[in-house]
Amino acid sequence: MRASILAVGSELLGTDRLDTNSLALTAALRRYGVELRQKAVVGDDEGEIADLVRRMAVETDLVLITGGLGPTSDDVTREAVAAAFGLAMAEDAAVLAGIAERFAMMGRVMPDVNRRQAQVIAGAELLHNPRGTAPGLRLETASATLFLFPGVPSELEGMIAADLVPWLAQRRGDITLETATVRIACLPESEVEERIAPAYAEFGRETITVLAAIGDIRVRVSAGGAEAARRARLEQMVARIVTLVGPAVYSRREEADLETVVIEDLTRAEATLAVAESCTGGLVAERLTRVPGSSAVFLGAVVAYSNAVKERLVGVPSALLAEHGAVSEEVARALAEGARRLFASDWGIGITGVAGPGGGSAEKPVGLVHVAVAGERGTEHRRLRFPGQRRRIRELASQVALEMLRRQLNATRGEP
Amino acid sequence: MRASILAVGSELLGTDRLDTNSLALTAALRRYGVELRQKAVVGDDEGEIADLVRRMAVETDLVLITGGLGPTSDDVTREAVAAAFGLAMAEDAAVLAGIAERFAMMGRVMPDVNRRQAQVIAGAELLHNPRGTAPGLRLETASATLFLFPGVPSELEGMIAADLVPWLAQRRGDITLETATVRIACLPESEVEERIAPAYAEFGRETITVLAAIGDIRVRVSAGGAEAARRARLEQMVARIVTLVGPAVYSRREEADLETVVIEDLTRAEATLAVAESCTGGLVAERLTRVPGSSAVFLGAVVAYSNAVKERLVGVPSALLAEHGAVSEEVARALAEGARRLFASDWGIGITGVAGPGGGSAEKPVGLVHVAVAGERGTEHRRLRFPGQRRRIRELASQVALEMLRRQLNATRGEP
Repeated sequence: MRASILAVGSELLGTDRLDTNSLALTAALRRYGVELRQKAVVGDDEGEIADLVRRMAVETDLVLITGGLGPTSDDVTREAVAAAFGLAMAEDAAVLAGIAERFAMMGRVMPDVNRRQAQVIAGAELLHNPRGTAPGLRLETASATLFLFPGVPSELEGMIAADLVPWLAQRRGDITLETATVRIACLPESEVEERIAPAYAEFGRETITVLAAIGDIRVRVSAGGAEAARRARLEQMVARIVTLVGPAVYSRREEADLETVVIEDLTRAEATLAVAESCTGGLVAERLTRVPGSSAVFLGAVVAYSNAVKERLVGVPSALLAEHGAVSEEVARALAEGARRLFASDWGIGITGVAGPGGGSAEKPVGLVHVAVAGERGTEHRRLRFPGQRRRIRELASQVALEMLRRQLNATRGEP
Repeated sequence: MRASILAVGSELLGTDRLDTNSLALTAALRRYGVELRQKAVVGDDEGEIADLVRRMAVETDLVLITGGLGPTSDDVTREAVAAAFGLAMAEDAAVLAGIAERFAMMGRVMPDVNRRQAQVIAGAELLHNPRGTAPGLRLETASATLFLFPGVPSELEGMIAADLVPWLAQRRGDITLETATVRIACLPESEVEERIAPAYAEFGRETITVLAAIGDIRVRVSAGGAEAARRARLEQMVARIVTLVGPAVYSRREEADLETVVIEDLTRAEATLAVAESCTGGLVAERLTRVPGSSAVFLGAVVAYSNAVKERLVGVPSALLAEHGAVSEEVARALAEGARRLFASDWGIGITGVAGPGGGSAEKPVGLVHVAVAGERGTEHRRLRFPGQRRRIRELASQVALEMLRRQLNATRGEP
């Protein structure tokens, strides 16, 4: 089964609103293994709505339409759908009575405009809308099933549960689709794609989706069928992706981001952490403290923006700063070790770099970052050169720092 | 001129991603009075992309396509558009060299998959993409102009400015619709609505939009017509909104957020700042250091998560901690004053609170935050009780801290 979603409303074509209703509809479709082929947004234009609906009803089996069922003259979804299939419309006495009653309940008289909401397309089934005045409609055409839902999110939500899901369940039975996620740090998207290429061949390209954020990639796999087989298939796919990608996999849970995993690993190791960051300006600390319960293992941070602070507060020797400059391997190491000493923590992270847009030079260009992680057994360092702008450079630097620590924690755990 | 927007990418048909790129494109279209007729999202399917693009190119004069220009085999926008209009494709040597060079800069060899990004549609003009590997394309068909842009938001943003806007400016001449923004800190949306109600009556409801984020509200006004009249009208509207809202207005520039304004005000006052934050975990420092050039006035921060750090590093007296607890007015004041002393700065911010979800009590519930700002003339304190969850509480606390400092800086400026 293939579906399309159409959101109707000129306000959804402006500069600050998006059709978020489609996400709730998509979630319901997914659960029943219905493939969403296309989403569209169109203004309150009867002709354009009719064109789109007609086309979607040919190209897909299920068309979900939201919005344009209101009482005002620019709410034309009912009329457009009727026109698209050459169907008549008529006022439904029971619907009209229901609307009038709803107003009466609020101690008001039904305004005349609301009468339009009692218009029903010939042959359509009415869908009760307990949270609003506009009923929904379900219409069977020669090629597809159409649902007309209100655009108000709370009303739609109620009708997804009461009308769409039971309809899907009846037709789709147990064919549910389930997903699992593998999360990966600090690998470029193209490299992840290359590494997992064999899995595309083995499991089918359409079952694997790669979602890339800054320094953070999600590989999401999906499987359908009966529960036991589906679960086994998902486990198999996840295991294969993990093998193909290698140690850059940091989590097998959709919701567990890198900072969450680092806090969990620290907690498991009963180890504490402190940070001295320069160019990331507090981002590493801020990310770690987003995680509830981080206070048990994260002791604190110094944002050491100026050389004076690096020297006086974190104890970076002035000779190092003078000889190598603030952006150098030596200073990154001294920051990591200084943080560890200052906070008396088990682990220390030090970051120094040029986030730009100013401050770059031929020798030390914008995007150059030194990251160091200090632990009981010594200090590890990486020199990085990130492309892009200030925000991106800071994000990537914080991601590398957390990933370096995560790997060290893993390595330590593996040892006697 | 009428336009359509097509976002390509199967990930945009999932349950957690929306096509936000269309908002930036819509803003550019609006400025030049181009009417957006339709938006659509389609998966990585060559046939469906080709169908949609062909139809959009008939129905509208301008078709803006984002996404599907990446290196992997599911990036098929180039191929689909070429197929839609029966055009050939060929590898462009200069583009290929540029991509290889970009990888070389990062110290890597170009993976073979990236070669696909050097494919160019016959007759299309290349659009340079300084922030990524995939160049954009502009193609004239018999009925429409098509732009193919990358889907990565930062890359798209650069190309809207460098390619789309100049193209629109050349064709549309004088900007037809212009907007201005008033930014407001720490007022609830309902209060802003009440305060600006008279402006709705005076200027027309459709010319004023209120956009609410956490602790941060934008009132956006718009005016059309010839340049002089339009500018005068905008100035009049902005002045009225500023009067109605009062001192919570912190900026009259769309892009100037609160941290930017605070850094500007500090720079103007030639004053320095340091921060000691507990429950916000580095968020205040991170926000301030997002602003390029902040290093001239922002000296640094201590993220003092544990009592030991508050005491030993920031100099909060242990008696205070014992008597009043870490979340108290006294400790917030001591943190602000301690930060000022530790970094030898003109201003100090101190924050302590219960961000949750754990750690709350009847006396000190989740959402209780104390913020203090210390300056030459003393320390100001506010006790706040925020509703909502961890992330929201942290955001609001950082916003209040920055706003308190901004008002103090303004007050100081007004004095002899």
